[in-house]
Amino acid sequence: MVVANAEARIWELGVALPTAPTPFGAYVEAVQSGSLLFLSGMLPVVDHVPVYIGLVGRDLTVAQGYDAARMACLSGLAAVRSHLGSLDKVRTIVKLGVYIAAESDFREHPKVADGASDLLKSIFGTDRLSARIVLGVSSIPLGMPVEVELVLEIES
Amino acid sequence: MVVANAEARIWELGVALPTAPTPFGAYVEAVQSGSLLFLSGMLPVVDHVPVYIGLVGRDLTVAQGYDAARMACLSGLAAVRSHLGSLDKVRTIVKLGVYIAAESDFREHPKVADGASDLLKSIFGTDRLSARIVLGVSSIPLGMPVEVELVLEIES
Amino acid sequence: MVVANAEARIWELGVALPTAPTPFGAYVEAVQSGSLLFLSGMLPVVDHVPVYIGLVGRDLTVAQGYDAARMACLSGLAAVRSHLGSLDKVRTIVKLGVYIAAESDFREHPKVADGASDLLKSIFGTDRLSARIVLGVSSIPLGMPVEVELVLEIES
Repeated sequence: MVVANAEARIWELGVALPTAPTPFGAYVEAVQSGSLLFLSGMLPVVDHVPVYIGLVGRDLTVAQGYDAARMACLSGLAAVRSHLGSLDKVRTIVKLGVYIAAESDFREHPKVADGASDLLKSIFGTDRLSARIVLGVSSIPLGMPVEVELVLEIES
Repeated sequence: MVVANAEARIWELGVALPTAPTPFGAYVEAVQSGSLLFLSGMLPVVDHVPVYIGLVGRDLTVAQGYDAARMACLSGLAAVRSHLGSLDKVRTIVKLGVYIAAESDFREHPKVADGASDLLKSIFGTDRLSARIVLGVSSIPLGMPVEVELVLEIES
Repeated sequence: MVVANAEARIWELGVALPTAPTPFGAYVEAVQSGSLLFLSGMLPVVDHVPVYIGLVGRDLTVAQGYDAARMACLSGLAAVRSHLGSLDKVRTIVKLGVYIAAESDFREHPKVADGASDLLKSIFGTDRLSARIVLGVSSIPLGMPVEVELVLEIES
């Protein structure tokens, strides 16, 4: 059931994971319950510094939003590797939530969310695509443009 | 434990499910993990065309929001039937999320969310009511007014 | 695995839980599936009356937002105790969602969310910290400033 090649694919793709994120308060980055792993909201940070600030569609382009979603997802994968030791222990991406800071007339949510979905597809393959929830929100911690939520099924 | 009459109730109520939704990107409409089924965000579409566009309370009435929540939930049930073959394999509606595009002075979230809750109650009965999360958000993909999230427990 | 002292800690801390919340529609406050307990969105109410109304950072201070998050979390614990009989049946706080009604320039989400996280830490201890999702949203039911989502692992 476990396709043990996510780490190999990351290496092939030349994708470097950032430093694993650390909490902004009294919480942890990942909690496991049975075979489910729930991650905290992931942000587009590198070494704990925000890479993007602002609303998508107002301060940032859709392409920048796509990149922010990709970076937030990379932080999530760094948290998963830190928690499990290896991405090869991930069986399925159960849920991907992509929350985009944007004004009420914003329409291009799917194109931004694809920054996370395309990354996951390139690493975990088309047979392990997630369910996805995408919403436009009024703001995200520290003024960042995208936040990513992940629920994974892992080897238990 | 399984009350095998959701399909019978839908038939009695004369409710027609729309075409099962299809993704706007690299994700799938439903992912199962153990006995839990996580659905992607469901929108008020019929045959992949949005039925409502706009903010509830500004561009649309609360009654239209209620109908949009009901339609999004119907799309969700179509996705569930498509995934499981029959709604009779649903044991419990574990979580219903209703996200409503609205401005900051909007107050009538519960009345909009009832469009989904009332539908689920009519099909699955009062002994299988869900937990519910309702939020007002700044925007929803493609400008739609309501998005519905469902987590179900199914026959495993 | 079960640390059976949450009720003792609540007593030591002198924390009084409010009346358990009741639904605003056709849903229930808690649904159990296997060893997971999903709660409905919890609000800062006492005896079903909102204690705070408004946006954090515009109508309310960050300190009031912190208190609102704490109160919403207390309502959640009241719902858990009502459902399980005792908080001592909680094994882990799997996910804490804190949704904050705020405008697009709001930045201090973590400080508000800490109202819930600090409460949970004081009752369940540092070895049972949750994963956490924090978002700024445009509005929350009845105009309240904070909504809290909880997913718990319980004795099954």
